[in-house]
Amino acid sequence: MDPNTGYRAVSPPDGIGDEIYSLAAEIFPICRSITGEGVRETLRRIGRHIALDVHEVPSGTNVFDWTVPREWNIRDACIRDGRGKKIVDFSNSNLHVMSYSTPVSGRFTLAELRKHLHTLPEQPDLVPYRTSYYAENWGFCISHRQLESLADETYEVLVDSTLEDGSLTYAEHFHRGESEDELLLSAHVCHPSLANDNCSGLALLTLLAREIGKRRTRLSYRFLFAPGTIGAITWLAQNERSAGRIKHGLVISCVGDAGGPIYKKSRRGDAAVDSIMAHVLKHSDLPAKVLEFSPYGYDERQYCSPGFNLPVGLFQRSQWGTFPEYHTSGDNLDFISGRHLQQSYEIVAGALDVMDNDVFLNNTVSKCEPQLGKRGLYAAIGGSPEAARSNVTMLWLLNLSDGNHSVLDIADRIGRPFSEVRTMAALLEHHGLLVPASSA
Amino acid sequence: MDPNTGYRAVSPPDGIGDEIYSLAAEIFPICRSITGEGVRETLRRIGRHIALDVHEVPSGTNVFDWTVPREWNIRDACIRDGRGKKIVDFSNSNLHVMSYSTPVSGRFTLAELRKHLHTLPEQPDLVPYRTSYYAENWGFCISHRQLESLADETYEVLVDSTLEDGSLTYAEHFHRGESEDELLLSAHVCHPSLANDNCSGLALLTLLAREIGKRRTRLSYRFLFAPGTIGAITWLAQNERSAGRIKHGLVISCVGDAGGPIYKKSRRGDAAVDSIMAHVLKHSDLPAKVLEFSPYGYDERQYCSPGFNLPVGLFQRSQWGTFPEYHTSGDNLDFISGRHLQQSYEIVAGALDVMDNDVFLNNTVSKCEPQLGKRGLYAAIGGSPEAARSNVTMLWLLNLSDGNHSVLDIADRIGRPFSEVRTMAALLEHHGLLVPASSA
Amino acid sequence: MDPNTGYRAVSPPDGIGDEIYSLAAEIFPICRSITGEGVRETLRRIGRHIALDVHEVPSGTNVFDWTVPREWNIRDACIRDGRGKKIVDFSNSNLHVMSYSTPVSGRFTLAELRKHLHTLPEQPDLVPYRTSYYAENWGFCISHRQLESLADETYEVLVDSTLEDGSLTYAEHFHRGESEDELLLSAHVCHPSLANDNCSGLALLTLLAREIGKRRTRLSYRFLFAPGTIGAITWLAQNERSAGRIKHGLVISCVGDAGGPIYKKSRRGDAAVDSIMAHVLKHSDLPAKVLEFSPYGYDERQYCSPGFNLPVGLFQRSQWGTFPEYHTSGDNLDFISGRHLQQSYEIVAGALDVMDNDVFLNNTVSKCEPQLGKRGLYAAIGGSPEAARSNVTMLWLLNLSDGNHSVLDIADRIGRPFSEVRTMAALLEHHGLLVPASSA
Repeated sequence: MDPNTGYRAVSPPDGIGDEIYSLAAEIFPICRSITGEGVRETLRRIGRHIALDVHEVPSGTNVFDWTVPREWNIRDACIRDGRGKKIVDFSNSNLHVMSYSTPVSGRFTLAELRKHLHTLPEQPDLVPYRTSYYAENWGFCISHRQLESLADETYEVLVDSTLEDGSLTYAEHFHRGESEDELLLSAHVCHPSLANDNCSGLALLTLLAREIGKRRTRLSYRFLFAPGTIGAITWLAQNERSAGRIKHGLVISCVGDAGGPIYKKSRRGDAAVDSIMAHVLKHSDLPAKVLEFSPYGYDERQYCSPGFNLPVGLFQRSQWGTFPEYHTSGDNLDFISGRHLQQSYEIVAGALDVMDNDVFLNNTVSKCEPQLGKRGLYAAIGGSPEAARSNVTMLWLLNLSDGNHSVLDIADRIGRPFSEVRTMAALLEHHGLLVPASSA
Repeated sequence: MDPNTGYRAVSPPDGIGDEIYSLAAEIFPICRSITGEGVRETLRRIGRHIALDVHEVPSGTNVFDWTVPREWNIRDACIRDGRGKKIVDFSNSNLHVMSYSTPVSGRFTLAELRKHLHTLPEQPDLVPYRTSYYAENWGFCISHRQLESLADETYEVLVDSTLEDGSLTYAEHFHRGESEDELLLSAHVCHPSLANDNCSGLALLTLLAREIGKRRTRLSYRFLFAPGTIGAITWLAQNERSAGRIKHGLVISCVGDAGGPIYKKSRRGDAAVDSIMAHVLKHSDLPAKVLEFSPYGYDERQYCSPGFNLPVGLFQRSQWGTFPEYHTSGDNLDFISGRHLQQSYEIVAGALDVMDNDVFLNNTVSKCEPQLGKRGLYAAIGGSPEAARSNVTMLWLLNLSDGNHSVLDIADRIGRPFSEVRTMAALLEHHGLLVPASSA
Repeated sequence: MDPNTGYRAVSPPDGIGDEIYSLAAEIFPICRSITGEGVRETLRRIGRHIALDVHEVPSGTNVFDWTVPREWNIRDACIRDGRGKKIVDFSNSNLHVMSYSTPVSGRFTLAELRKHLHTLPEQPDLVPYRTSYYAENWGFCISHRQLESLADETYEVLVDSTLEDGSLTYAEHFHRGESEDELLLSAHVCHPSLANDNCSGLALLTLLAREIGKRRTRLSYRFLFAPGTIGAITWLAQNERSAGRIKHGLVISCVGDAGGPIYKKSRRGDAAVDSIMAHVLKHSDLPAKVLEFSPYGYDERQYCSPGFNLPVGLFQRSQWGTFPEYHTSGDNLDFISGRHLQQSYEIVAGALDVMDNDVFLNNTVSKCEPQLGKRGLYAAIGGSPEAARSNVTMLWLLNLSDGNHSVLDIADRIGRPFSEVRTMAALLEHHGLLVPASSA
């Protein structure tokens, strides 16, 4: 609006949704778990786009009530039938092997084998995703239809995996802003070939970090790519003292499907991030919902544990556990799209815009209205309906900018988007009618 | 659930509803008023079940703005028609005589007599209940149909009553708990043959007191059987200094009919008893209602007078004054039932369970979640839908037990019954994951 | 109710609505603007009913961010067609001339003239009301139908006006009460021949002030008749230090039509005036609405600017800008009526009654209920439904009069009109059961 004003809303780059989709597709085939080479390979791909600090935390390290587990890696796995034919093959889909399966090589009757086969009887064509991180076991996941077709014969089973002392891997990307106050964006990096959960989140945060890197920001931004639960716990254990710098946080997962979007509030329930996400979703023109906090879901469970109680919420499209593709082979690259990733990017970027630019202002003429006409502020606007709305926005900003209402508060009061009201506030700042509350 | 945990929900004894009904039926015929032998006889019957301290307060004693009235007793009363036939007879129903009727013996024309006859024109078959405690008068209550059938002749009237200096009688049963904090349960003992109002309440409290006597409790329980208004005022006057020990209180009346149930909040409106009754009623599966406080009703009027402002609410089935049988001969033993008395007992007992067992706990692992698996707490639960709910309950208890949320608060937050959540909390206490907040 | 009690609700005088209408009709023809003889003449007419302090503030005086403008006066204005016939004549309606039109005398082609002609194409029979206070210009307002009928010829235009240093005029009427606390009633005096906006408000306040003058009041009442915006700003600039005395305030405009009524809350939103107006409107039996504050409208914009933030709301029938007659020749004497002015008077007078008589009381018997019977307070009431309600009102007053609930609070709690509850409170004061909280 005015070249001299300090605020300009940032638009998403053209085609960012498709770029996110491409990166999600690139990392989709990698076999990730809570430790191991799959995580490292994923981080290498992310590291082609943004600078990463990769941390390795040795097995056996105590992190609060937990211990970093042994590292799991897998080279191959298959089941052969009586004629030696591979009927289940890890190289077709890493979902076929239960994560953290211990090594096995031997022959099993169908009855013996069945104890290690996981299916979804109610979704007979889909392969489930299963893990056994803390109880040593092995297993295969197959479609229920395949299970029902298995002949009563002897099967040869191979799991060529290792479960040994090693380390847990996570990575951070840090963008330094004017302030030490931080904004945390966190995505879990431990799920194997599940496109929405969470290739979508990893790819979105990667390209968002790349775009943030092009700007000067007020807040510092911390992007965290870590295994779910144990990774977040490890990060909190290693950053216990500096966690208080986090002023806003979002856990990002399942952001590529057509559902939602939803935002689950932080445990505080009235943190700034909660108001900001409610605001951005309200103005998104999508059938968005804001949900109350609950202590189950993703890593907000840890960030919002009562000893930390950080202002961190969860952003998703479809809520975890509520869509039929959740934790199955149905969560593949057809389930997500560039269009929906683009929408998710815009919502998250819109929230960051508020976090970085919301401000408490003070009017410099507080007794009676300032005379807008003599400053050309009516003329600057004209006579259209949009102009009338701008005029009303100006009057609201001048009336409520008393140090007690932020620009976001005022935007919410009058039901207009933050960027529109922040732009008008910048114009009034330019004319000397508003000044930052701290300098008043 | 676990033999070592400290909490076990108490179930109502088999057939308690029928037992309550029997006692209500036993005391139903007695002619009670705010003073006199009827009250004493009722307390003797109650005293066969529980220990009672019976107090006699002399007529003329000043109690706040009131004075204990003279004692009223009645031996007989009747109206005879011109042929000497008894057409109204106290020995058929004590409702026929207005309570506190002064002695009379004489002959009256119908016109004279009518000034002393009370009927219900809109319920012509029912006999009303009337009193004249503080204005000396005499009267009879009959059905409107009988009134209309009276011939225009001379009637012979007898009221063989006494109104003399004596005393007001009330009784207490006290169950000592670990704490001096008290729970007050109060029922009025002044109504004659009205089954719901309040033979039902007297009988329920009597047998509840008997059951409480079998347990060790945290709170001390005070059961008060006193005449309405003047009895409660007298008790408050005699216990003015110790009234502050009352942490929760319930006035109990009309608890045997099929209506409601309803709970009328204390004057405070946000007292623990108000939350607790709302919780218990919500989980009762009955069409219960919670009403705001109002300064009319039963003895909560006195307990909630502003100079005391005690946390005392009113529990009823049908609300006083709203059912057609109220204060009529329709409120007889057919109007109440063992089934509904049982439901009322369960609600009151459920509320006492919360009052006695709600607690603020602190988690011992507050930074990130504790690892439940290594403690077998997932295993302890299994894989059913109920198990999933138990798991969620555990996570909520761990997340919110920060000294600021009681177990009831958490139960209300997640919409589960107190006893279920308290049982789970006891299990977590047993595993050292929760400890009482005061010892943290 | 009782001759000795201190409160008596005041009824509106008979025919006050018609009296207000007559005064509005008397001042309707005067050509008012934000300065000039029209304002002075209007104040002279008002001054025949009540004592006025008239203030003249010289052009050029600085008032906060504004400057008092030059004074505008007009003697005549007209447009003549090619044959010399007056086709637009100021003497027919002062709406025909844009307020603050600069002098002009000359001949114009239709094309030139059209730039100075204002019409309402969507309301083709009505003449608009237009002003140009701060941009020097001249203009005429005519019906759109007339504009379309104008021949393409040369027109002779005369505006015989002056725009010169002079003064801005406003007037106050002050009624001294027991307290220095003030109640502000403000109406704008700057609009020309618009009956509702604001001859109605000026006339209503004038006759209300006359009636107030007949009474002893607790509060002092200040009636302000000033030009909109610049007049209110000027008054605030000249009374900056004493503005804090204003405990309640109402801006009054458009109070003669059949719409609403509406009350727009003060910026505080929870000021006493906001509760009081909500109360009075609720009990008015009219389809009233209470609107949230917004920083546009009438002079509440200035009173509620953040540097003052006075407890001043806006009372209207139809809200400004929402009725088709607004700021047109349709806002004439047919648009308002004595009946609706009477209703508006009753609402404003009812609000003043609450402001002047609401009080915090303390009960003198706070422990248990007082015995009403021995004081004849039940007898004083009888047995009708109205009596039962009075009894309930008594119990509520006694229960809640603990110094924390005003009589209005109690009236709102039980949903009864203030005057009824205040009358009952006065009776209880008379019996010594309630006393002013400050003396308790």
